[in-house]
Amino acid sequence: MGSLNTLSEIEAAEAELREFLADRVSSAAAVREHHSHGEDTHPPGMPDLVCFPRSTEEVSRIVEISARYHLAVVPFGAGTSLEGHVAALRGGISIDMRQMNRILRVSPADMDAMVEAGTTRKQLQKALENTGLTFFVDPGADATLGGMAATRASGTTAVRYGTMRENVLGLTVVLADGRIVHTGTRARKSSAGYDLTRLFVGSEGTLGVITEVTVRLHAQPEAVAAAICAFPTIEDAVNTVIEIIQLGVGVARIEFLDDRQVGAVNRYSHLDLAVKPTLLLEFHAISQASVDEAARMAEGLAAEHNSLGFQWQSTLAERERLWQARHDVYYATRALRPGSRVLTTDVCVPISRLAECIVATRTDLDTMSFPAVMVGHVGDGNFHVQCLLGEDQLTEADAFAERLVERAQSMGGTCTGEHGVGSGKKKYLAAEHGEGLEVMRMLKRTLDPENRMNPGKVLD
Amino acid sequence: MGSLNTLSEIEAAEAELREFLADRVSSAAAVREHHSHGEDTHPPGMPDLVCFPRSTEEVSRIVEISARYHLAVVPFGAGTSLEGHVAALRGGISIDMRQMNRILRVSPADMDAMVEAGTTRKQLQKALENTGLTFFVDPGADATLGGMAATRASGTTAVRYGTMRENVLGLTVVLADGRIVHTGTRARKSSAGYDLTRLFVGSEGTLGVITEVTVRLHAQPEAVAAAICAFPTIEDAVNTVIEIIQLGVGVARIEFLDDRQVGAVNRYSHLDLAVKPTLLLEFHAISQASVDEAARMAEGLAAEHNSLGFQWQSTLAERERLWQARHDVYYATRALRPGSRVLTTDVCVPISRLAECIVATRTDLDTMSFPAVMVGHVGDGNFHVQCLLGEDQLTEADAFAERLVERAQSMGGTCTGEHGVGSGKKKYLAAEHGEGLEVMRMLKRTLDPENRMNPGKVLD
Repeated sequence: MGSLNTLSEIEAAEAELREFLADRVSSAAAVREHHSHGEDTHPPGMPDLVCFPRSTEEVSRIVEISARYHLAVVPFGAGTSLEGHVAALRGGISIDMRQMNRILRVSPADMDAMVEAGTTRKQLQKALENTGLTFFVDPGADATLGGMAATRASGTTAVRYGTMRENVLGLTVVLADGRIVHTGTRARKSSAGYDLTRLFVGSEGTLGVITEVTVRLHAQPEAVAAAICAFPTIEDAVNTVIEIIQLGVGVARIEFLDDRQVGAVNRYSHLDLAVKPTLLLEFHAISQASVDEAARMAEGLAAEHNSLGFQWQSTLAERERLWQARHDVYYATRALRPGSRVLTTDVCVPISRLAECIVATRTDLDTMSFPAVMVGHVGDGNFHVQCLLGEDQLTEADAFAERLVERAQSMGGTCTGEHGVGSGKKKYLAAEHGEGLEVMRMLKRTLDPENRMNPGKVLD
Repeated sequence: MGSLNTLSEIEAAEAELREFLADRVSSAAAVREHHSHGEDTHPPGMPDLVCFPRSTEEVSRIVEISARYHLAVVPFGAGTSLEGHVAALRGGISIDMRQMNRILRVSPADMDAMVEAGTTRKQLQKALENTGLTFFVDPGADATLGGMAATRASGTTAVRYGTMRENVLGLTVVLADGRIVHTGTRARKSSAGYDLTRLFVGSEGTLGVITEVTVRLHAQPEAVAAAICAFPTIEDAVNTVIEIIQLGVGVARIEFLDDRQVGAVNRYSHLDLAVKPTLLLEFHAISQASVDEAARMAEGLAAEHNSLGFQWQSTLAERERLWQARHDVYYATRALRPGSRVLTTDVCVPISRLAECIVATRTDLDTMSFPAVMVGHVGDGNFHVQCLLGEDQLTEADAFAERLVERAQSMGGTCTGEHGVGSGKKKYLAAEHGEGLEVMRMLKRTLDPENRMNPGKVLD
């Protein structure tokens, strides 16, 4: 697919945009190419124009102009999408949000912050230094808060602190006709009407452009403990996770790496971990005594499931090395096969089915002609597979990914726990939502009757 | 307003309903009267018919018949609404859900349970005995899970465990045309499409009838500590709350009672509490040592804010007496003025404005001709006012309630933290949501174009 618009429409829109954006609108090929794809293997799509707004009002004017010229609108954040979210599959205007990165408010008493949607996770973290508060949602990439809200992102700490679903308190959204809507209030909870915040969280730009995000903050834990623990089998590791969560101990992160992933991390991050199914654990509490107690309880549960022993990461430096290694799994995995394309996918299943799902997936992977590793936020039942593909292996990997999703859905799970649908996973929604998919389509037609908002994603 | 339908339409619908419901459809005046109101001061409304379905399929058939005869549909749970939710303002069919009270599944490994929507909170609690798990959302009344989902209910434990927004994982909903939709999956999180679960949570029956609810369960805390603490001023109490939450200690309940409320509780529950602004606190942790530590930290913070000392409730019996007294505030308050009508309202503000809001509200109340008390889930910034009204005081109380809402909204808060909109608070939504209200109306028209689903509530 390419642009749906005539050159004269695009030129007329560009002229109107230039009136208030000046050089912050571009039709240069290099700029358009940069805005044609994320970090995935899905088909790219060049926008006709790229805009760099600096305020919600500018976004509103851009969208209003797009409406008049029937141009598609594709929001663009940090460009770290894994499911084709930012490709301009029908041309139109890519709205690059990264110049909207102001911290608008931090309220320590209310434990919330309001930022422009182009603010990245690390920018927000920096603004929170010395407040005693932090923002915990961490998808790995230094994504923008707008992009994270749009994909309902999560990451390693969701097991304790929730996903963007729980951590977004309000949004400013520009609708398809340019209208500006503010969702939520500054109150922590409300029963006053439909939950528009949650409607836009996870809508991937298909219902409007998110321009401002109010997020929930959490207390920085006074004490932190971290450990690495290898297990003889995947089942032992997962059953340990289930019991740790049932116990209600304060586990803040609980990550699973399969043996191949451990091998990759060892090589890339110069570690010497046992090449076994492994859990990385982190505990947060209000004191060293409390955190030690939680960690000891977890260690005891792991021992009952044949663990090969907790390796404590006592110092901050050790912990940072551990979590840097976890963050680096993407690069560690790439380094297994330099020059390969990486297909990264994620599913999420009820935790009672997780071990079965991972084992069946490993068995399937073992018949593939390419190497692959698995890593997951197992406290949520969520895991990722990274496939390292040479020439001509994408078809084989796509077929594997399809079986993976079908396996997860047949266990009551979802085709994506945190990456989103984009263009890549649209085909799976009918099986997952049944009649609900038609409800989603009704909502889409209501808010975007011309299908101009990030077309080709999620639903169509 | 009365029924919008002709007698012959109603009789024809009744005949069709009787074919599969037999004596589980009623047009008896006493039954209709019982289904005409909740526990509030809002105008009642008699339904033309009352149905008592036993399955989602029966609800679907009822709604399908209502569609053919253009009858309104009003879901009815435990009848504990405080904002006129269950009044059949345009007649039609009241669907009494209380025969749909089966526990469909409890999964300890996944820490979730699926119940029919007419199941009450206490029925679910009973089903969870001996699992080590519990369901924490507690609005006081023994409401049905369907009603709680529909109003986005919360209660004393929301500060730690969240509201129905966070604790509903999936729903079965019958739409206006009788179609059955299942929202959510059994995975703990998902980025696969629009969040239909959250769209229906809080929609108060105006978008469809909730027939099944999947809820999140939590670990029963291994150790619990509770305390009562009086303060010289409201500000001291609220500032203590803010610091306790910022510290991240495991406070599971933190309730505020104003001095009048304490007086009422003393009389009704035979307690001897200091008649001062008072906090009731409960801490949950994985061990006695951890819970003691959290509670001691909170005690220290309270002392810095001039507390009159923590009174520990060490035994289970003492704690139960304490929380029974909290649960009984509604009755304790009524007993202040036997025979009076009670107007109960709730607002929620950013916690940074909470002390100011409560003080201004007390000042306002002190000029009223009726007695009133305040109690609140202050960890969320949420508080309730109960006004005890004699003859001819409702107009005065309504004007007070209007000022209360305007005060809360002017502070960035919401017109209702947990009771819902119903018919009572519709007039406040324009000020609260601005352009967002029109988006809500668009959603309503899309899913219920004839405005038959609980008409007269939330939006129109």
